Amino acid sequence: MPTIVYHLSWEDVNALGTTAETVPGILSAMTVFSVTHRSSQTGARCGFLTLPHAPEPIPTPVFMPVGTRGTVKAMTQEEVWELGFRLILGNTYHLYLRPGHELVRQAGGLHTFIAWDGAMLTDSGGFQVFSLEELRKITEEGVKFKSHLDGTEHFFSPERSIEVQYALGADILMAFDECPPYPCTEEATRAATERTHRWLERCKTYHDAQGTAQLLFGIAQGGTYEGLRAESAQFVASMDTPGIAVGGVSVGEPPDMMQAAVGWSLPHLPPHKPRYLMGVGTPRDILDAVAQGIDMFDCVLPTRLGRNGTLYTTRGRLNIKGSRYTDDFGPVDPNCPCRVCRRYSAAYIRHLYKCDEILASRLATYHNLAHYAQLMQGIREAIAADRYEEFRRQTLAGYEELADAASITAGAE
Amino acid sequence: MPTIVYHLSWEDVNALGTTAETVPGILSAMTVFSVTHRSSQTGARCGFLTLPHAPEPIPTPVFMPVGTRGTVKAMTQEEVWELGFRLILGNTYHLYLRPGHELVRQAGGLHTFIAWDGAMLTDSGGFQVFSLEELRKITEEGVKFKSHLDGTEHFFSPERSIEVQYALGADILMAFDECPPYPCTEEATRAATERTHRWLERCKTYHDAQGTAQLLFGIAQGGTYEGLRAESAQFVASMDTPGIAVGGVSVGEPPDMMQAAVGWSLPHLPPHKPRYLMGVGTPRDILDAVAQGIDMFDCVLPTRLGRNGTLYTTRGRLNIKGSRYTDDFGPVDPNCPCRVCRRYSAAYIRHLYKCDEILASRLATYHNLAHYAQLMQGIREAIAADRYEEFRRQTLAGYEELADAASITAGAE
Repeated sequence: MPTIVYHLSWEDVNALGTTAETVPGILSAMTVFSVTHRSSQTGARCGFLTLPHAPEPIPTPVFMPVGTRGTVKAMTQEEVWELGFRLILGNTYHLYLRPGHELVRQAGGLHTFIAWDGAMLTDSGGFQVFSLEELRKITEEGVKFKSHLDGTEHFFSPERSIEVQYALGADILMAFDECPPYPCTEEATRAATERTHRWLERCKTYHDAQGTAQLLFGIAQGGTYEGLRAESAQFVASMDTPGIAVGGVSVGEPPDMMQAAVGWSLPHLPPHKPRYLMGVGTPRDILDAVAQGIDMFDCVLPTRLGRNGTLYTTRGRLNIKGSRYTDDFGPVDPNCPCRVCRRYSAAYIRHLYKCDEILASRLATYHNLAHYAQLMQGIREAIAADRYEEFRRQTLAGYEELADAASITAGAE
Repeated sequence: MPTIVYHLSWEDVNALGTTAETVPGILSAMTVFSVTHRSSQTGARCGFLTLPHAPEPIPTPVFMPVGTRGTVKAMTQEEVWELGFRLILGNTYHLYLRPGHELVRQAGGLHTFIAWDGAMLTDSGGFQVFSLEELRKITEEGVKFKSHLDGTEHFFSPERSIEVQYALGADILMAFDECPPYPCTEEATRAATERTHRWLERCKTYHDAQGTAQLLFGIAQGGTYEGLRAESAQFVASMDTPGIAVGGVSVGEPPDMMQAAVGWSLPHLPPHKPRYLMGVGTPRDILDAVAQGIDMFDCVLPTRLGRNGTLYTTRGRLNIKGSRYTDDFGPVDPNCPCRVCRRYSAAYIRHLYKCDEILASRLATYHNLAHYAQLMQGIREAIAADRYEEFRRQTLAGYEELADAASITAGAE
């Protein structure tokens, strides 16, 4: 386990003399990821992720709340921290447009700008840019797109994406990739996957030349095709980035297909590096993907569904707007130890929703993130005790008491 | 000072045997209000208000945040408490319609329903009902009105208002009054004021007969007419309610007229009872009214303006959306010790507003309420040290560095 380096800020690391030569040495000394336990019956593992802005190593498997525009919607940074999260996600496309990455750089980076004491990951902006459809034009060089806010023209390339992410200053940067939609022909998926590989090479070349201490993660694509998934995972593994993401999931495919894509990819990824399943997912998705060996997750579900009145409980999801909660003066989830469940009743939260009060979104988001935090904590403890499969089965059985639903489309909120 | 009774809940008080005869005895033993200091140069005084649901006597002058529908908008009850508030307001009209006073009664009252550990005051519903204009019909018996939510017909009388307020269970109930608009002829103002007196008699008769330990406050009207103000204050004083409100202000009249109305009313009110200026106001309004001898205030300004991006500072109000805050990485108010100012920058809060994020409303509301809490604390300390006039002058001089504005129309948010 690292004992010194993970306390360093970028300023500290830079003060050590960050050139393209010294930084890889520092990074390897950091032992970015360490696995402490492996499940004997499944592929699940737990460990620690060591990041410069995290005050302590971050236990994995880890869920990252999504802070699209520099805020985990409806939450303060203090609350996200209080819930135990130490790693959150920011969306490069949104922050690039507003407030602008140069302003964030001027503020001292995203951590300082939003006053977040933990670590951050930024996506590449690719997913949002590709989602613009009408407003973008893709070439080998990159993507020309129009802002959804004011129609102004912009251009993202692999190099430009990394440059913008530097300004944001996250601990983990994601490579600029092309994420094929679902469904997608094999031919089109191959083209997107191979472009993703070429763009990863460009990202890595650009990043290595800059010599910053930020960690660049590659993204494996391959869509719903076993051969392409294997090929892409092998290619990305060969690029030797400190972590690797499985991308192109949670884009509307059925849950089984998502798990299949993970299963086709993981055998080709180095076991000592963190594996990040992008945009996933429901508690069920997470439980299943952890069993396959995924270490990192992000998803808008707990926050977005919270704002819409859908609350996660140990008995499954519920819609708090339902009339059955009108006079339910007990907590939303009697098994939940969160501050919301300890203090506020289902009936009160329902009332707040019916009145469209801000506090409704606040309480539901807080509770849902608390549920995810408890789920991840349970997952880690179960893996450490080598009873993960039992934990997964019991948790899923609990969820079946009420309703649940498939993953929604990934991306920013 | 009371040492026992203010710890009692309604349950405790009721257990003592609350009949129409015993309760007045208990209440007088409670010494609802005690004045501890009087300003030698102004009419300002400070003291304590003792209410069953307040864990400790509440220091006055006091500002009550408005919790229209059972929530001080954008805040949790923990945050309102953390800011030092122990007495908040609920709006009877809104709560009667949604979630319904019977549901609140079933929950154990408003304190329990919303999980508020402090004391509460409910208005009579009259102000909102009269504001419906198109949807209401006034008779001597009461007001027939249509819900703004679904058009259903309802009827509020003095007795009905008190009955609904019983179900809500606040510490302080307000009498059902008729608040004349501004401007208003002397004849119409006289009619509304005299009806207010007749309705106060009915409220008091009904309340005395019920024998609950809740405190009924009468409301003096009189509009912008010196003679009517004096007459109304004298009448309400004669009814011997444990506290008296000056109503009919903050309805669009100029600030000078508001202070004049207070000045015409106060000489006729008993000095040993708390005086509540309803729906007021800006920091300037409060500073001036305290100098005249007002003890209690409520207003939607800090919360409503906060949600719109107007922030109070010791240098006056500012609009955080202004481009001058784009790269202002310092706090909104360097003199403010609140959690928002200690952690978040003006530039970040501006960014949140530009993105219409919930956190914008949260941070601005919290800060504005913190500003009001500090203002009231400063007021009380200055009165206790007999330097109120100096404090008022210095505070107002500070506010002139930036802009301020007149009071807005009172009422629910």
